[in-house]
Amino acid sequence: MVDNYKRKYDVLAEELAARGIDIEKVKSRLKAQKIETPSWGYSDSGTRFGSYKQPGSAVTIEEKLADAAQVHKFTGIAPSVAVHVLWDFKGANYKDMKAYAESRGVRIGAINPNVFQDREYAFGSITNENAEVRNKAVAHMLHSIEIANAVDSDILSLWFADGTDYPGQGDFRRRKAYAEEGLKTVYNAMPAGMRMLIEYKPFEPAFYHTDFADWGMSYSFARKCGPNAHVLVDLGHHFTGQNIEHIVAFLIDEERLGGFHFNNHKYADDDLTVGSVNPYELFLIYNEIVKAEDAPNSNPPIAYMVDQAFVTKSKIEGMIQTIMVIQAAYAKAMLIDRKTLLEAQLSHDIVTAEMCMQQAFNMDVEPLLKVVREEMGLAPDPMLAFRDSGYMAKIQKERGTRAGAGGLGA
Amino acid sequence: MVDNYKRKYDVLAEELAARGIDIEKVKSRLKAQKIETPSWGYSDSGTRFGSYKQPGSAVTIEEKLADAAQVHKFTGIAPSVAVHVLWDFKGANYKDMKAYAESRGVRIGAINPNVFQDREYAFGSITNENAEVRNKAVAHMLHSIEIANAVDSDILSLWFADGTDYPGQGDFRRRKAYAEEGLKTVYNAMPAGMRMLIEYKPFEPAFYHTDFADWGMSYSFARKCGPNAHVLVDLGHHFTGQNIEHIVAFLIDEERLGGFHFNNHKYADDDLTVGSVNPYELFLIYNEIVKAEDAPNSNPPIAYMVDQAFVTKSKIEGMIQTIMVIQAAYAKAMLIDRKTLLEAQLSHDIVTAEMCMQQAFNMDVEPLLKVVREEMGLAPDPMLAFRDSGYMAKIQKERGTRAGAGGLGA
Amino acid sequence: MVDNYKRKYDVLAEELAARGIDIEKVKSRLKAQKIETPSWGYSDSGTRFGSYKQPGSAVTIEEKLADAAQVHKFTGIAPSVAVHVLWDFKGANYKDMKAYAESRGVRIGAINPNVFQDREYAFGSITNENAEVRNKAVAHMLHSIEIANAVDSDILSLWFADGTDYPGQGDFRRRKAYAEEGLKTVYNAMPAGMRMLIEYKPFEPAFYHTDFADWGMSYSFARKCGPNAHVLVDLGHHFTGQNIEHIVAFLIDEERLGGFHFNNHKYADDDLTVGSVNPYELFLIYNEIVKAEDAPNSNPPIAYMVDQAFVTKSKIEGMIQTIMVIQAAYAKAMLIDRKTLLEAQLSHDIVTAEMCMQQAFNMDVEPLLKVVREEMGLAPDPMLAFRDSGYMAKIQKERGTRAGAGGLGA
Amino acid sequence: MVDNYKRKYDVLAEELAARGIDIEKVKSRLKAQKIETPSWGYSDSGTRFGSYKQPGSAVTIEEKLADAAQVHKFTGIAPSVAVHVLWDFKGANYKDMKAYAESRGVRIGAINPNVFQDREYAFGSITNENAEVRNKAVAHMLHSIEIANAVDSDILSLWFADGTDYPGQGDFRRRKAYAEEGLKTVYNAMPAGMRMLIEYKPFEPAFYHTDFADWGMSYSFARKCGPNAHVLVDLGHHFTGQNIEHIVAFLIDEERLGGFHFNNHKYADDDLTVGSVNPYELFLIYNEIVKAEDAPNSNPPIAYMVDQAFVTKSKIEGMIQTIMVIQAAYAKAMLIDRKTLLEAQLSHDIVTAEMCMQQAFNMDVEPLLKVVREEMGLAPDPMLAFRDSGYMAKIQKERGTRAGAGGLGA
Repeated sequence: MVDNYKRKYDVLAEELAARGIDIEKVKSRLKAQKIETPSWGYSDSGTRFGSYKQPGSAVTIEEKLADAAQVHKFTGIAPSVAVHVLWDFKGANYKDMKAYAESRGVRIGAINPNVFQDREYAFGSITNENAEVRNKAVAHMLHSIEIANAVDSDILSLWFADGTDYPGQGDFRRRKAYAEEGLKTVYNAMPAGMRMLIEYKPFEPAFYHTDFADWGMSYSFARKCGPNAHVLVDLGHHFTGQNIEHIVAFLIDEERLGGFHFNNHKYADDDLTVGSVNPYELFLIYNEIVKAEDAPNSNPPIAYMVDQAFVTKSKIEGMIQTIMVIQAAYAKAMLIDRKTLLEAQLSHDIVTAEMCMQQAFNMDVEPLLKVVREEMGLAPDPMLAFRDSGYMAKIQKERGTRAGAGGLGA
Repeated sequence: MVDNYKRKYDVLAEELAARGIDIEKVKSRLKAQKIETPSWGYSDSGTRFGSYKQPGSAVTIEEKLADAAQVHKFTGIAPSVAVHVLWDFKGANYKDMKAYAESRGVRIGAINPNVFQDREYAFGSITNENAEVRNKAVAHMLHSIEIANAVDSDILSLWFADGTDYPGQGDFRRRKAYAEEGLKTVYNAMPAGMRMLIEYKPFEPAFYHTDFADWGMSYSFARKCGPNAHVLVDLGHHFTGQNIEHIVAFLIDEERLGGFHFNNHKYADDDLTVGSVNPYELFLIYNEIVKAEDAPNSNPPIAYMVDQAFVTKSKIEGMIQTIMVIQAAYAKAMLIDRKTLLEAQLSHDIVTAEMCMQQAFNMDVEPLLKVVREEMGLAPDPMLAFRDSGYMAKIQKERGTRAGAGGLGA
Repeated sequence: MVDNYKRKYDVLAEELAARGIDIEKVKSRLKAQKIETPSWGYSDSGTRFGSYKQPGSAVTIEEKLADAAQVHKFTGIAPSVAVHVLWDFKGANYKDMKAYAESRGVRIGAINPNVFQDREYAFGSITNENAEVRNKAVAHMLHSIEIANAVDSDILSLWFADGTDYPGQGDFRRRKAYAEEGLKTVYNAMPAGMRMLIEYKPFEPAFYHTDFADWGMSYSFARKCGPNAHVLVDLGHHFTGQNIEHIVAFLIDEERLGGFHFNNHKYADDDLTVGSVNPYELFLIYNEIVKAEDAPNSNPPIAYMVDQAFVTKSKIEGMIQTIMVIQAAYAKAMLIDRKTLLEAQLSHDIVTAEMCMQQAFNMDVEPLLKVVREEMGLAPDPMLAFRDSGYMAKIQKERGTRAGAGGLGA
Repeated sequence: MVDNYKRKYDVLAEELAARGIDIEKVKSRLKAQKIETPSWGYSDSGTRFGSYKQPGSAVTIEEKLADAAQVHKFTGIAPSVAVHVLWDFKGANYKDMKAYAESRGVRIGAINPNVFQDREYAFGSITNENAEVRNKAVAHMLHSIEIANAVDSDILSLWFADGTDYPGQGDFRRRKAYAEEGLKTVYNAMPAGMRMLIEYKPFEPAFYHTDFADWGMSYSFARKCGPNAHVLVDLGHHFTGQNIEHIVAFLIDEERLGGFHFNNHKYADDDLTVGSVNPYELFLIYNEIVKAEDAPNSNPPIAYMVDQAFVTKSKIEGMIQTIMVIQAAYAKAMLIDRKTLLEAQLSHDIVTAEMCMQQAFNMDVEPLLKVVREEMGLAPDPMLAFRDSGYMAKIQKERGTRAGAGGLGA
């Protein structure tokens, strides 16, 4: 089929120019944003009801990096890979890993300590009543800082499964004191230039309370640690209906937004592909990011990271789709007619203000993105190009269907 | 600004042809679908915290019909107006109302009895423990059938505020028996050709239980009444996260989907503009409608009705925006590449299947809709045309800011 | 510590007599109700983030039955054990299992086919697009009927993990047709006296839609199968806030309530101990049960089953606690002053009506339950008695900490 | 009927003594806690669907104070009344009001400015784009400080209806800056000894975003104002499932918990009687309060306030019931066996820890509360005593059924 994207791009460019939007600037920002993909997105994962192994799924860290490199190769904006210390680096030589990643054209990104998998953490890690367990968890995080140093990563990304299942099981405030103490110890061990991201989550795997339940708690802990501790917003870690873009804006304004874990959820922490449930919400989040880029304050650089588990989807394809969806949301958010929007806001003309958002969201940005990719030396359609590459068939044949990667429900 | 919609339409037509989609058929379906707007969407309404009167808001039924006629005049697909018996028709001469509507180019649509406003209904209407109150409610519905006959409407649209606030307040099963009895009496009084739509709602204004809490209860009551009783799906009457398109598909399959109350909600029954919270969800609902049109079973004709309360938005503009949003969702749902989708479904290729949905959703259908409107003899941009017409300034001047329309929170 | 329960029992008996409640009848109903515990409640289970093995957890079906027998031994009302075909019965000699259970003083209860664990079910079981997979699932259920026959069980308890993660992935109505077809085949193979329970669940492990999403869908499927197909209400399979006792009452009234899976949830399907989040809700559910017992219609006998996963709690103790909590809710529901309640309902005196419920809920029924247990030849405090028995220390020593039981997240 | 409460009290006292709990201390704390009732709880209120007038409902502030005085007269622990400036004090002579309240045996408590009712606030008060509107709102709050001074109240209780209904309508961060500026102006005008309480609410009446959406935002605003700005926790202003007791504990630990608005909700902000949906949750909240009383930090004194709207319940009776429910929760929380609980927590014995909570919650504290009331010179059963007093019949006769009180949905 003939693809008309160049004709459509020309029409779009003309329209944007008429609205005073500099399409070259839009393209250059699209080329500059980098999205980090997670090593665990390339291995088999599942739910508590089981994991369905797929042929070709990555098991070793080398395979995960190789697969992530494919995503970067075809999208051009996914150059780094988040790693999970226990799942990926058990007994590894970190320098070797770094070199291997680079040989594949990617680099190692955020370091994610794992303080929930070992049996000792059954009743919590840094909030455990047992000081030995708390110390073990802190030691693992200190070790993760060393790994980060070894692989030139500057982000320590912390999520704690800590919480309780039943009223009475724990004392909220005693646990809060443990958490503060542990975080400060880790924070103080970070070298200059390293940042600590503190994630929050209202429930799961703990089902009565979680010690880092919402952004307010992570924000409070981050403030107590110091200026290099920031909040990590995982899109799936909110109550259904909660206005995430508002939280994002609030954190930017407070200069504590450290980064994102992109995904989407309809119910709980579903870890679905970002934008798959409500693409408009992703656009509205990017609207806040674009505004922050347009008028920066002292908020730290935002780490854009994907945190998804493909239970049923094909993994590399799913990750390419993810990057494309994020890119489209970013592009659309840059096309908002901000002058008209501001006037409508100031005059309380709600219909016009909303239509500014809808107009940008409804624009077809595929032609724009295809031109951007071409200018980056990429194929205009990454999915098609990846499918044509034969990589999937190759790894399915070479790797087969195996168990053993670690990861969720695996 | 030069609008390139014809150029864009030509590109679109070419692309659709290549995918085997008959754009003429799409256009003809877009011209055929009719959306009913509610009389109460043109008067001031509010929340329990109050109602902010707007200059020009309709108070009389004549004003409401006149405003609704503007929406039809500029969109071409909103020819009927749902009425609320108590708010609109108290003491009216129904034949005169009918003639007045027609003189304005619209007609009276669904008849909505009101069995919640009067003081007697404090503890329920057809589920009240007091037989006199139950009888009063039934009598009002029987009277509404007469009104429907008088104005040539064939839809009796029933929503009950009945429910309880506290455990113990009512007996679920005794109330269920009362409801069945009342509904059957009303059903049996309907003339041939008239349909009863039974709405459901999980909460508000009752906050412990509602007697028609979900689609399953309405479906069960409808089955007991007979073949002309159907379920009415109000998009805002679901728990956050609930999959509405699945319920829609299930009801179509059971041949009991009677109609929609279009709106959108982020939290409770927010009565926001349809598609304003999650436009993708509206598209997915229309996907089920399009499939049902493509392969009809014995499901009754679906009544497409808007049920929104504009608390802060300008009302007529808000309604025009609403019709445009619905139209766009319908158009996009017809552009899904169904052949590729089916193949992907059968081979469990989830990425491709989802991308079929996303591709259609992301298409810019404004050029198509503009051509449709032109072919219907309308201005291509209804909002612009309405704003240019001077109608708003005229009614603001003539009517001023007044109270008294009835309606929510008013 | 001196336990005053006999003194307290005497006071209670006196009070109830004054209110016209026959305490002997209450006691006899408390002795008659039987609660089934699940084999999978005795083995290690977990979340998708992992499973923490406990010393002494059951691995074999023999161990699970032995542990369940302890719960029955000390509570006196848990004589049967639900089994999961794949986890418990793989390659077993069913007759031997039956005999073994009986030797331990329990019997095998509901048979739960497992059509979600095998790799083939990655995209659904009876709603899979692949007819071979659908047939495999049906064959497994037919085999489960044979097992039921072999072990003298009369309940086939069906839960399907079937659903989709993304829009477009499946066709709701085609899948609905597959489901109907499969269920009817299984239904028609059931011998006289056997019942099919159809569970529902709004989400997890599928996160966009589930084929049996709510009670209305299960009810509709059950109706199509025939009079021995009923709906199974799992307390955790509802949206937060949903009024479960209303659904229970509605199903009883429709004579389709087949049974319960008792547990509790605060967020998603948390599978916590029943009554641990909101004990008042459990009491309100039992209120509907007691009313149905007081004035029976043709609703089938209700199967009372526990479906809980103890991730952090000690398993046998947790199950004893569970049985005690259920028993207390039942007892309290029988103590409601129904005469005063009815009068208050009829006169719309909400404060009094609610206080009838609260009064019964706030009563201390431990003395009553202790006397019941004594009269059944049991120790008055089952937890204390179990702890004193030394069973836990014995199995911890004998069994140690092992993997391999199957089950959730295991 | 003979009430055995003294016999039961003796048994209870004996048991508590055996557990090392000093019942005299419990009683003295029960006598000391004061609960404030709201003036608007005595007038007719409703939902957006209407308000059902009750005979005898208060309309004037004098009537509201007189009714509140009844609640205090019979419960002994409700000596103050929160007032809503616009609904209660329009044009009033504040000194007269104060004297009138005192003549009835109560005093005026928290002052609630109203910056949502006037037409100007249609698009926000202190976050409005229009500086004149923002100034008007601030001026009203400054005036409220003067009222507080005049009536010797030391609490300024702030709730803002500010928010937006649609994406694009407002700019989150510009509105945040407006809010900060306005709050600081008001804060700086407060005399020494006055406290500002900042409420939060996730939605309603704004349905896309609210400017004070959660505790984290109120906490952040409070910190910026200064040490006398605290967070107000309204139990109904949370997402369903959110763990409120955890937030309460966190705020106490941060020394920013200013007070409560007691009520209960099942779905949205239902404003039902506290404890009516989940009485266990109220007990768990009181558990945190009791712990804070046992080991105080620098958290300010907590203002215990009721915020309920009785749409269907009889108002004075409903408020007496409310006070009794709160009192029972407080009593039960003091009966927790804290020594056993702590040991269970430290040894991760979850079953025992939870049973400590359940044991206390399941205790029948009515005998204890009746003795407390007797020792305070009150009738043991406040509801019975109020009903016997003839007050309700008297005001129903004197006042009749009237409109005009102001208030929600009125």
